[in-house]
Amino acid sequence: SEYDGPHMKTAVPGPVSLALQKQLGEIQNVQSLNFFCDYEESKGNYLVDVDGNRMLDVYTQIASIPIGYNHPALVKVVTDPHNLSAFVNRPALGMLPPRMFPEKLLDGLLSVAPKGFKRVQTMACGSCANENAYKAIFIWYRTKQRGHSNATPEEMTTSVINQAPGCPELSILSFMGGFHGRTMGCLSTTHTKAIQKLDVPSFDWPMAPFPKLRYPLSQYERENAQEEKRCLEEVEDLIVKWGEKGKPVAGVVIEPIQAEGGDNYASADFFRKLRAIAKKHGSAFLVDEVQTGGGSTGLFWAHQHWGLDDPADIVSFSKKLLTGGYFYKDEFEPDKPMRIFNTWMGDPTRNMFLSEVLKVMRAENLMDQVKRTGHVMLNGLYDLQARYPHLLSKARGLGTFCAIDVKDEDTRNKLILKARNKGVVLGGCGTQSIRFRPALVFKEHHAQLFLNIFNDALADM
Amino acid sequence: SEYDGPHMKTAVPGPVSLALQKQLGEIQNVQSLNFFCDYEESKGNYLVDVDGNRMLDVYTQIASIPIGYNHPALVKVVTDPHNLSAFVNRPALGMLPPRMFPEKLLDGLLSVAPKGFKRVQTMACGSCANENAYKAIFIWYRTKQRGHSNATPEEMTTSVINQAPGCPELSILSFMGGFHGRTMGCLSTTHTKAIQKLDVPSFDWPMAPFPKLRYPLSQYERENAQEEKRCLEEVEDLIVKWGEKGKPVAGVVIEPIQAEGGDNYASADFFRKLRAIAKKHGSAFLVDEVQTGGGSTGLFWAHQHWGLDDPADIVSFSKKLLTGGYFYKDEFEPDKPMRIFNTWMGDPTRNMFLSEVLKVMRAENLMDQVKRTGHVMLNGLYDLQARYPHLLSKARGLGTFCAIDVKDEDTRNKLILKARNKGVVLGGCGTQSIRFRPALVFKEHHAQLFLNIFNDALADM
Ligand code: FES
Repeated sequence: SEYDGPHMKTAVPGPVSLALQKQLGEIQNVQSLNFFCDYEESKGNYLVDVDGNRMLDVYTQIASIPIGYNHPALVKVVTDPHNLSAFVNRPALGMLPPRMFPEKLLDGLLSVAPKGFKRVQTMACGSCANENAYKAIFIWYRTKQRGHSNATPEEMTTSVINQAPGCPELSILSFMGGFHGRTMGCLSTTHTKAIQKLDVPSFDWPMAPFPKLRYPLSQYERENAQEEKRCLEEVEDLIVKWGEKGKPVAGVVIEPIQAEGGDNYASADFFRKLRAIAKKHGSAFLVDEVQTGGGSTGLFWAHQHWGLDDPADIVSFSKKLLTGGYFYKDEFEPDKPMRIFNTWMGDPTRNMFLSEVLKVMRAENLMDQVKRTGHVMLNGLYDLQARYPHLLSKARGLGTFCAIDVKDEDTRNKLILKARNKGVVLGGCGTQSIRFRPALVFKEHHAQLFLNIFNDALADM
Repeated sequence: SEYDGPHMKTAVPGPVSLALQKQLGEIQNVQSLNFFCDYEESKGNYLVDVDGNRMLDVYTQIASIPIGYNHPALVKVVTDPHNLSAFVNRPALGMLPPRMFPEKLLDGLLSVAPKGFKRVQTMACGSCANENAYKAIFIWYRTKQRGHSNATPEEMTTSVINQAPGCPELSILSFMGGFHGRTMGCLSTTHTKAIQKLDVPSFDWPMAPFPKLRYPLSQYERENAQEEKRCLEEVEDLIVKWGEKGKPVAGVVIEPIQAEGGDNYASADFFRKLRAIAKKHGSAFLVDEVQTGGGSTGLFWAHQHWGLDDPADIVSFSKKLLTGGYFYKDEFEPDKPMRIFNTWMGDPTRNMFLSEVLKVMRAENLMDQVKRTGHVMLNGLYDLQARYPHLLSKARGLGTFCAIDVKDEDTRNKLILKARNKGVVLGGCGTQSIRFRPALVFKEHHAQLFLNIFNDALADM
């Protein structure tokens, strides 16, 4: 069973981490490195480092660990001799899938498909998920434009040499503060930090403002509705403008909660109207659930909070789903082979793990757990921001997917390090926010423990 | 031990494959699917399908299986209880690597680093390897242009909104017939088939002709030298032209053998001069060894056949190396954290497998094996093209990395299916070539077996 609390032996990073960091620094850039982990000793919500420090993990490998470290159900996937060959022989899934692949899709991804989706394409990470979703959108858009899928000889020839009409000037509209990955298509829709984009060429694609809401949302409904209206008008203007520029907006991509960008929210009404604007202009609507999907908002998909019957054309995922990929409406399936393709097309062992994760979620009712824990978390954060109004503001969250703002970037970074030395792993987002991303097995008492330690860290500031 | 030959029970795909294909077809596009595999029963050079057909594999999951199926050394990686936690808990490698990560880099990737390389960045596939290599090149180029790495406030601001000067108009020069991946940066340097690029927007980057050599190379040295000269002149013209256009060529990317594009070769002299042209114009030289790396050409890296002291600035890899990534010269390391970054940054279990692969390669002297087997393969292909001159031409190869042309695309595809039904798995490349990509454990008698069956298939045509 799990540990009963954090246990710190050294400052973090400790001497063993520092020695390993020096060694790794001879091989690659280690400036983003936090510390080295002892994953064998880590358990449940506790991450253990190589110096024997045991920390409560409220960041979970950038929100990618669904049910804690070394969960027995996942350990069994590896030790089951029937699964051995899946780990040893990675297939080219698009050509030579293993026998169990359709079944694992059915009891895995398809069993949690968002409303209205029956088809799914696996990929290996969030970036190739979105890159290929964009490609599916471009193919769909051009097929719609020409009325059929048979390209002209000129289109075929020019496509190979990067020229129109084969490579058309189409665009994806994204939002300020949005994050959709770091490969060059995705990166053209990512607008969080300069350091992620500086010096890298970009497609000339439109970027709309994302609503800057005032918190708590319930107190500023009128002002926030006004702000959302402004952003929606801008979206529509941009779609028209880019159409006139000859770079039609084939798709709109958005996160249900801007996660890397600072845990920024918009209302269900905003998303309903945005989805309608996309439809009106013939643009596909892609909801990026790479960070929000998998249950931590209290529903399996964050976009379910909108309550829409037809929320999206494509929904992409990765991280806590363990495999990357995207669900898509029928019309986004290319009619020919090899248009959406690569060597691995995902990794079937990830689908095996996912099936077990979903079983555990059902057996242990983890969605209810998330709601209960989220309640403790968010109320605790409200308390703390009332106690430390000079340091904290804008506590916000859905389920355990919570965040709070710190007075400035520097203080935020110090607070994260202070909390770490007291035994809590946290991560930042946006310019001055802390994001809380515990696993789905994070219970009320873990939340309480975290709040106590966070309080100590704040008291020390 | 291994099976003693192919054993066919049904046509391929057989009834079980077809039923599974129907099931999977309800979920995703299955037009590129060949058949479903029984990876548990597959062994060494033999791939077994779900209908119990056992085939000699000369394609190896698009050239990505280094030492055959279910090699005992790789099975041990999974069954070793010390490794369990690495499979169960996938880390955010750039922040929280496992203890063994530096060691696995040292006894893995670094132990086979190309001459002159001491640094390596892991990634999860060939596409993110190249995407990030391009980004490293752009960052290096801009740093060089401004003379330092401190961007102006204007650069910082504009980068977030996809505008210059923060997102500069830089380009990567690539070659007709080259393949470097399918995400949108990579895809702008990929020029193989229309179907891979049609309808997808592309960066306006220059594409040079790749030499169209006459085979056998030894017979046409003068003509081929002439053709290579023409292509090199074109490269230099394009670099100048794109510079004048305001889209300077920050880097040149090329495969040592164009693999997807049809196993197209160029001489060591061509690569030496190309590397010199890149250097002269201040462009980085990126050698993409995603398909050629890992030993099948008879040297660990195909570019070693050039015999250069300073062959490249960056060398990217994936497939048989099991992990994606790239080696890079010191000056291609960004000076700040998070410029080259993503959630997973590879997968440490892939590095564990790679260490074992390299041990097996050394213990079993597989590089010598490849040379011996390659000799049998290539001579056999010469024989066959002499026997079937109306069907086959241009037999070519280095080590076991061999190819042959078939009279036309349709005949090529039929020949591949015919060989499959006789128990040999083959793959096409280019418009009318067959590429042979056996594992490194493919021995002389496997080559002989393959040649006999291929001969039968040809006799049937
Ligand atoms: S781009 Fe997703 S794994 Fe490489």
